[in-house]
Amino acid sequence: MKRCIIAQSGGPTAVINASVAGLLMESKIKGYYDEVLGGINGIEGILKENFINLSLMTDEDITRFKYTPSSGLGSCRYKLKDPTESTDEYKRLFEILDKHQIDTFFYVGGNDSMDTVNKLSQYAKEHSIDKRIIGIPKTIDNDLPITDHCPGYGSAARLIATITLETYLDSTVYTNNGIFILETMGRDTGWLAASAALAKLNGKSVADFIYLPEVPFDEDKFLKDTERVFKEKNHVYIVVSEGIKNSDGKYISEIQPLGEHDNFAHAQLGGVAGYLKSLIINAGITSRVKTLELGVMQRCGMHIASHVDIEEAAEAGKAALNYAKDGHSGYMVGIKRTSNEPYSSQMFLIEASEVCNKTKYFPVNWINAEHNFVLQEAEDYIRPLLQGPNSEEAIPNYYKIKK
Amino acid sequence: MKRCIIAQSGGPTAVINASVAGLLMESKIKGYYDEVLGGINGIEGILKENFINLSLMTDEDITRFKYTPSSGLGSCRYKLKDPTESTDEYKRLFEILDKHQIDTFFYVGGNDSMDTVNKLSQYAKEHSIDKRIIGIPKTIDNDLPITDHCPGYGSAARLIATITLETYLDSTVYTNNGIFILETMGRDTGWLAASAALAKLNGKSVADFIYLPEVPFDEDKFLKDTERVFKEKNHVYIVVSEGIKNSDGKYISEIQPLGEHDNFAHAQLGGVAGYLKSLIINAGITSRVKTLELGVMQRCGMHIASHVDIEEAAEAGKAALNYAKDGHSGYMVGIKRTSNEPYSSQMFLIEASEVCNKTKYFPVNWINAEHNFVLQEAEDYIRPLLQGPNSEEAIPNYYKIKK
Repeated sequence: MKRCIIAQSGGPTAVINASVAGLLMESKIKGYYDEVLGGINGIEGILKENFINLSLMTDEDITRFKYTPSSGLGSCRYKLKDPTESTDEYKRLFEILDKHQIDTFFYVGGNDSMDTVNKLSQYAKEHSIDKRIIGIPKTIDNDLPITDHCPGYGSAARLIATITLETYLDSTVYTNNGIFILETMGRDTGWLAASAALAKLNGKSVADFIYLPEVPFDEDKFLKDTERVFKEKNHVYIVVSEGIKNSDGKYISEIQPLGEHDNFAHAQLGGVAGYLKSLIINAGITSRVKTLELGVMQRCGMHIASHVDIEEAAEAGKAALNYAKDGHSGYMVGIKRTSNEPYSSQMFLIEASEVCNKTKYFPVNWINAEHNFVLQEAEDYIRPLLQGPNSEEAIPNYYKIKK
Repeated sequence: MKRCIIAQSGGPTAVINASVAGLLMESKIKGYYDEVLGGINGIEGILKENFINLSLMTDEDITRFKYTPSSGLGSCRYKLKDPTESTDEYKRLFEILDKHQIDTFFYVGGNDSMDTVNKLSQYAKEHSIDKRIIGIPKTIDNDLPITDHCPGYGSAARLIATITLETYLDSTVYTNNGIFILETMGRDTGWLAASAALAKLNGKSVADFIYLPEVPFDEDKFLKDTERVFKEKNHVYIVVSEGIKNSDGKYISEIQPLGEHDNFAHAQLGGVAGYLKSLIINAGITSRVKTLELGVMQRCGMHIASHVDIEEAAEAGKAALNYAKDGHSGYMVGIKRTSNEPYSSQMFLIEASEVCNKTKYFPVNWINAEHNFVLQEAEDYIRPLLQGPNSEEAIPNYYKIKK
């Protein structure tokens, strides 16, 4: 009996199950393993021997699972201790893998999960343990280095761009329109917020301003810009990333009474739209300010997922299986963009140590000089990743009546 | 030269333009009018002679407009004075219609717009003015009486049900899940919140509780229910309508410092999810409570609109044109459900006076005895209205891994 195990970790995405489905389908075809197990709630569940046998799933089950959003195997935010501190969990984990005749461990996750992949594979190498550990990337934030982009990002970006366009249309119907502020996720990176630039009518972005964490947020400039556009159009559409900081490097969202931290000591961000609203009202620009925090919808919007994203997520799972068969360990599957028009990509291997505990920021040279919008390069990068499930445009081509 | 004019009023919906598109296509076929004008920003714009010629739109323009959400002609919340108070606006309006050889005025709107249709048609009759005024219904709230349902509702309900399912999946991935509260629109009626009951996995609704404005909200019962389910499952999914009231008839959302009113003296509701969150935290049940206010997305979600809804909205516009040709005035087009399985409907006429200033509430006998969920009758009513654009299921059939 030869088994592998796959588990999911960190925040969900719309396509995180597509990677599991891709690996399961490939395993049925190739037959490298007698059984594929699913670890429930990531490494936390594996350490409790909480497994299920995914090889019992029918092809129809796997296909439905491919199109089901959010970590279907459950997730965790469990950080392995550094082996210099304690190796108890490492020993325990490899004992469990041995006991269940598990040869390979696939971990679908982001930065922190690749830290786990790196630590486990290092430990295995140092102790001559014959096991393979492979990471499969997922993150809506798109903040993993080296890989061109991450599965999960395209679908979240497609949701953001589409809802930007739709709520723009909603927020401009009256003669006395106010100001609309859309808040996106993205932690310390602006990839998600930048996708709002793709929301266009007649070829022009509907958002007036997009604020990203990669450049300092200047309140005075923000208020001047907002007031100017509001006077001109009686409406302003603003997109803001949860992670914007002021010139002192302090999160704008932390200026409000917010302070919870998760186990990885990342600040729990959010609420920046409300803060900008209060700035606008206090400056006397207008009291008609609406905010929308997209929140967790960005992590689970399969109903508007990108076709490219779903297929690449599946492809990454498939590639992981084949890389493990070839004996690789301690790597994350990455995506290389081989062409932009027409779009094509291929999978390749990245050392997990090159990924973990590092952040790929949105390029500052893709942000305009005024620090309030993104440049064409950003659109060119993002657009191919948003292709719809039925080969529709990346985002809808709505019709604007000329008034 | 014989013209008609169409305008839109009140809050947008995803399919409000489909009614205009349906009328425009039918007009091209039937040729009753030489030109169809569009009134910009509802009656407010018509009183300023702010028109455009919609007959210049190509078939392709009209089709794209049909699938574009949110009042493309602009909107208003303008209330005509009662004619016993002042008839100035009435005189002015009919002068303008005469001046531009406009024979018929079509008004796409909700309750307040039907008040305008009723007042104008009454005034025309009393003054022997040979003009037709016809209302075309739209409202996401589904609160217009007599008609089985309103264009706009099915699409908003489909968005709510789908996002309920997706955010349920997102909010249950960890071992220590918290409580999730989804807030819907709907004013004083529970039609929108009720649609969350259709979000199911393996045939079972994912929401634990749905609170509607039609029955009083009992804080003690709410906290007991929430605590019991949280202890049992370590997770609770709660759906709440913005308009819930306590046993004194006071809006729960007004217990917070909220109080703006629009021109029709409707309370501006919202923020009830935040209030429930504070109740849960103060009761010590858990501090892990997430809220999501769907907000204006419910009014403009064409990307997930219901096919039945889009087609009925277009059908209502088409029917309005034909009813006007037959000389009817002072009516709203209504929808009669002629069969539930398979679903079919037909248009009919309803006196605008029977619609305006009245509210169709969600039936209290479709709410359970505990006042925290809806019964099968509600699902049977709602489900056919949510059919997807490519004949998909009403909402996605996601796959749940048995753990």
